[in-house]
Amino acid sequence: MKTCTIHGPKALEIEDRPIPKPGASELVIRLGAGGICGSDLHYYHEGAVGDFRLKKPFILGHEVAGEVVEIGAKVESLKLGQRVAVNPTRACLRCSECLSGRSNLCRDVFFYGSASRVPHMDGGFAEYFIATERQCLPIPEAMDFRLAACAEPLAVTGHAALRAGSLVGKRVLITGAGPIGALLAATCRFSGATEVVVTDLLDEPLKTAEKMGATETVNVSHVENTLTKEGQKNVFDVAFEASGNLKALESCILVTRVGGKIVQVGSLPPGSSTAPLNKIMAKEIDLLGSFRFADEYRWAVDVLSRGWIDVTPMLTKTFPLSEAVLAFELASDRRRAMKVSLVTG
Amino acid sequence: MKTCTIHGPKALEIEDRPIPKPGASELVIRLGAGGICGSDLHYYHEGAVGDFRLKKPFILGHEVAGEVVEIGAKVESLKLGQRVAVNPTRACLRCSECLSGRSNLCRDVFFYGSASRVPHMDGGFAEYFIATERQCLPIPEAMDFRLAACAEPLAVTGHAALRAGSLVGKRVLITGAGPIGALLAATCRFSGATEVVVTDLLDEPLKTAEKMGATETVNVSHVENTLTKEGQKNVFDVAFEASGNLKALESCILVTRVGGKIVQVGSLPPGSSTAPLNKIMAKEIDLLGSFRFADEYRWAVDVLSRGWIDVTPMLTKTFPLSEAVLAFELASDRRRAMKVSLVTG
Amino acid sequence: MKTCTIHGPKALEIEDRPIPKPGASELVIRLGAGGICGSDLHYYHEGAVGDFRLKKPFILGHEVAGEVVEIGAKVESLKLGQRVAVNPTRACLRCSECLSGRSNLCRDVFFYGSASRVPHMDGGFAEYFIATERQCLPIPEAMDFRLAACAEPLAVTGHAALRAGSLVGKRVLITGAGPIGALLAATCRFSGATEVVVTDLLDEPLKTAEKMGATETVNVSHVENTLTKEGQKNVFDVAFEASGNLKALESCILVTRVGGKIVQVGSLPPGSSTAPLNKIMAKEIDLLGSFRFADEYRWAVDVLSRGWIDVTPMLTKTFPLSEAVLAFELASDRRRAMKVSLVTG
Amino acid sequence: MKTCTIHGPKALEIEDRPIPKPGASELVIRLGAGGICGSDLHYYHEGAVGDFRLKKPFILGHEVAGEVVEIGAKVESLKLGQRVAVNPTRACLRCSECLSGRSNLCRDVFFYGSASRVPHMDGGFAEYFIATERQCLPIPEAMDFRLAACAEPLAVTGHAALRAGSLVGKRVLITGAGPIGALLAATCRFSGATEVVVTDLLDEPLKTAEKMGATETVNVSHVENTLTKEGQKNVFDVAFEASGNLKALESCILVTRVGGKIVQVGSLPPGSSTAPLNKIMAKEIDLLGSFRFADEYRWAVDVLSRGWIDVTPMLTKTFPLSEAVLAFELASDRRRAMKVSLVTG
Repeated sequence: MKTCTIHGPKALEIEDRPIPKPGASELVIRLGAGGICGSDLHYYHEGAVGDFRLKKPFILGHEVAGEVVEIGAKVESLKLGQRVAVNPTRACLRCSECLSGRSNLCRDVFFYGSASRVPHMDGGFAEYFIATERQCLPIPEAMDFRLAACAEPLAVTGHAALRAGSLVGKRVLITGAGPIGALLAATCRFSGATEVVVTDLLDEPLKTAEKMGATETVNVSHVENTLTKEGQKNVFDVAFEASGNLKALESCILVTRVGGKIVQVGSLPPGSSTAPLNKIMAKEIDLLGSFRFADEYRWAVDVLSRGWIDVTPMLTKTFPLSEAVLAFELASDRRRAMKVSLVTG
Repeated sequence: MKTCTIHGPKALEIEDRPIPKPGASELVIRLGAGGICGSDLHYYHEGAVGDFRLKKPFILGHEVAGEVVEIGAKVESLKLGQRVAVNPTRACLRCSECLSGRSNLCRDVFFYGSASRVPHMDGGFAEYFIATERQCLPIPEAMDFRLAACAEPLAVTGHAALRAGSLVGKRVLITGAGPIGALLAATCRFSGATEVVVTDLLDEPLKTAEKMGATETVNVSHVENTLTKEGQKNVFDVAFEASGNLKALESCILVTRVGGKIVQVGSLPPGSSTAPLNKIMAKEIDLLGSFRFADEYRWAVDVLSRGWIDVTPMLTKTFPLSEAVLAFELASDRRRAMKVSLVTG
Repeated sequence: MKTCTIHGPKALEIEDRPIPKPGASELVIRLGAGGICGSDLHYYHEGAVGDFRLKKPFILGHEVAGEVVEIGAKVESLKLGQRVAVNPTRACLRCSECLSGRSNLCRDVFFYGSASRVPHMDGGFAEYFIATERQCLPIPEAMDFRLAACAEPLAVTGHAALRAGSLVGKRVLITGAGPIGALLAATCRFSGATEVVVTDLLDEPLKTAEKMGATETVNVSHVENTLTKEGQKNVFDVAFEASGNLKALESCILVTRVGGKIVQVGSLPPGSSTAPLNKIMAKEIDLLGSFRFADEYRWAVDVLSRGWIDVTPMLTKTFPLSEAVLAFELASDRRRAMKVSLVTG
Repeated sequence: MKTCTIHGPKALEIEDRPIPKPGASELVIRLGAGGICGSDLHYYHEGAVGDFRLKKPFILGHEVAGEVVEIGAKVESLKLGQRVAVNPTRACLRCSECLSGRSNLCRDVFFYGSASRVPHMDGGFAEYFIATERQCLPIPEAMDFRLAACAEPLAVTGHAALRAGSLVGKRVLITGAGPIGALLAATCRFSGATEVVVTDLLDEPLKTAEKMGATETVNVSHVENTLTKEGQKNVFDVAFEASGNLKALESCILVTRVGGKIVQVGSLPPGSSTAPLNKIMAKEIDLLGSFRFADEYRWAVDVLSRGWIDVTPMLTKTFPLSEAVLAFELASDRRRAMKVSLVTG
């Protein structure tokens, strides 16, 4: 079978590997569609994500959906031909984090397409890949696999929203209009936020964010200090920092109201970062980290299946696995691409 | 009457002023005792606290207790001779923060002995000072005024503890063994924490912290990386950063467990600060600012009055107002002094 | 001017009174539309609501919107001709409840059209009525006053929803499809609930609840034990009891999942009530009372103004004030009426 | 070995059974001490607890501590001779409740000495009994087994306290001065409550409650309506109903302040109960069920081991297993007994 395997910076290869065989509680999934994520791009361009550096080649991809094509002996709830969204996470379900409802912080997690462990963990950008029963959530017969693959980043934003508490009636700022920022706009609107302002340095992703639910977008490169003008200080109840940019975090700290909340969902640079931290104390802000997702994956598949959150405006273009390099190049251009999909064929 | 008035860096003068007259809802308090706080010392040494720079002379002091000696016409609940702890805060009780139970974030607050407003606000280091009825909480006849004056910093730590949620059974780290760190140790023990580790760079304040309730103290200058050795990472449920030192904040981020909480109660340097912020996201930490106090002042007076929290180990030495300069000099030496008191006489 | 004044059971009179004059901080509002509420009907039929029995005649009505026609000298933010939704609540903003963000529990509240105090408090079913500046929230020029009047019951459901915490992705049961139940369905959907099941004993209100956002409706008189059949036990994350019926409360207790929440928003019979309370403990349920609303009124006006919650399906019929008795009679028939409106004319 | 086996109402027999053999992950514990609990007494007097009726004989006892005397092949953390407190709960750690941190609500729990399942589950009132590694928590060498056995009811009160949120500075009411009420007094004081009022119908248990930490006790049979006199209404922030008595629940509803919390920890009569439930809504009270405990068992062992909560005042008398009937008879007399212990010998 064909796989999309990363060997190092700029070394993404369409490699043949044998089709995997399922264990007793496992299934083989034929890839329906996979979305290229920012961390895939980091492996592609830098051979690393934050502290996790590639040591051996592995298959990329963790935003995936597909069809069940082979079933282990002990699998009970799924049948051949079932279309499923596949949660890339296998939490241990035994550590104290898992047992306290925070499996996103599992100390011994398997995660598709990641070099965070040695040996590295193969992902789902392959014609076929292995999943456990628990990872697979059925989707409707007619549902586009590319939409289903968005359950993963949508779960990330669902988790971030939950960290902020109830959003009903809240004024929300989202810094960064990449896929996470755009999905946050949809998630915040779905959760009852009444104002959802999204910022970015580029107009193109802001247009998509608007289609996804932003009530206002601001290109912070066009204007000087837009968000920190006198009138705009201390106005947001909740800010989601989704760009990983320290300048954006600074804006969040300045424009969040006293007693407000900031959810850090973007990946800040590894090592030390600089920010006006004294204001965290003086404004009594809650700065809340948000890491991956737990049960929110189930929620994401549910609302996508019902069509209650429509991620179609995010889908940029679709490539066959064999053209993965073209797909990764397009996905790297934030002006031209939001979410690029890979399909089997 | 004698007052302890600051004119600029190192210019603290014992100045004569007329005894103030109370308004209809006000009282005149004769100073029983006042505690010298870190912000008093900042005005003394630098003529400023953070962004608040002295523009005109004003009377220092916000940790105060005393006796009612004159009463405005409309005061109902207090009588002449009543001994009271005096809350230095007059929140407006009309802004949206006050009306949401967060009067510590009041947008229009009067606070004793502060240059945060122009005209500056006189404090309580004077033979007599004005208070409103709401500011004055009765204390027992036999209670030492110096203990009662500690209600103010104790309220600060009570508020910080509340920000962390229930502490029952929790493992707690406190960085910084100054008066706030020491009172946090007492507050955390009072609130049910089972391990209370306090760190500092000096042995002397750590000894006091131990008397105040720390279950363990660590001099982080003696040992290399004590708290971040492999075995100590990720062990604390809650960390209180009470030193205002960025190195200490970094330790807090490293040794707090995944999913844990850090309460920033110390004043970090104004402007930009540096810290391993990416770990806030990756460890899904709550970094919670804590600013002053609201109803916790009432709690502080209550537990001090009952003797349930004993702050006697913190009291270093007592000076008459006329020797305030000596008192401020002693209070500036963390090796020799924890809490220095001023009394009338 | 004409007023709709209650004198006792079934004694509702269209009475002439002088047009009121505003105090310095008050305004005179010309009634645009008023909605008849269940408590209005209790006064109409029984001369009492719960423990509050009419002692002297007073003007009914607390779901009101209208136009500013006269302004006191100190009013600053509103002008003649402004269309406003009028919050029927004047909380004291001084008691400890108000100062903790729970003004709905104010110990000294003025509330339109209520006999809870002596002298009773006149309401807004009159050609003209008095409001304070704080009570009046501007609405768009083109907005139907009957929709704006629904801000009051919508605020009740917004508060109830807030009591339950985040509803995103939750399975919700609502017992009772009266105006509160129907608005709860809309509020829960707006707040991200994914399943919203509404029950009632009548088909007609259930049809309206469906139009307002219920994903499923169940007539619990048609079917035997529908909700407590084996398969339906322990399935709901949150139940809103909005009927005031003890049988419905029992159902809520049975079908809410272990560890789930029940919000009691309907008015249960005064005095002692009977329910399977032992299951509150054994299932570790949170039974949460919900009383009126606080800042949620502002939210309600906002979402109605934006058209994000559309209450048109609830509006049954409109009567001039002079035909109030006909209106009250129609409003008393749950088969034929959901929300009956009174207008000036 | 000797066991204390219940055969039906008043049929408690000292029965010989073979010493059990441990599975690979199990241990055999030699009973050090066991405390007789209210549910043991229900089986003894009525052959049932609530809905759970004895169908076959089984060994009673779930408050136990003892010494490891045999170890399964896979047990790693415990050695022969280790003294342990034994958690009577084996939660499945797989169901959604366990995985959300609420293992006290486990759908498939094994619990010592209970008829809630068929076959019934043997308890620890036997010379030897089986435990898994996870159930056993080491205690200090010198610790009295009777104190260690109190970890179980102390965990119940620790869980109840946690349900109420932070208790620091709170005014607390506890209705019922049995072992749970007395331990609640200790737990609330430990958790920072400043007023802890305990009520009962008998003086004797109230005296013990005072020794355990109550700041005030009230015999509600001596006085008329003590707690509901005008001045006492709406005064408590939190009430713990620990008697299972509906009259006490009514008092809790009346004397808890508006916006306050009631934790139902006592077992109310099965079936329907009567209470002034309308006030739950009108006073916006949180009525919170509290069922058993989860991680609080670990906390209980910790604070007992440190001596930070001293349960000695509760210990009434100690009997050898062979005199279990005498022990159960004494334990049934609330005037004479609080906690009766069984020991091997």
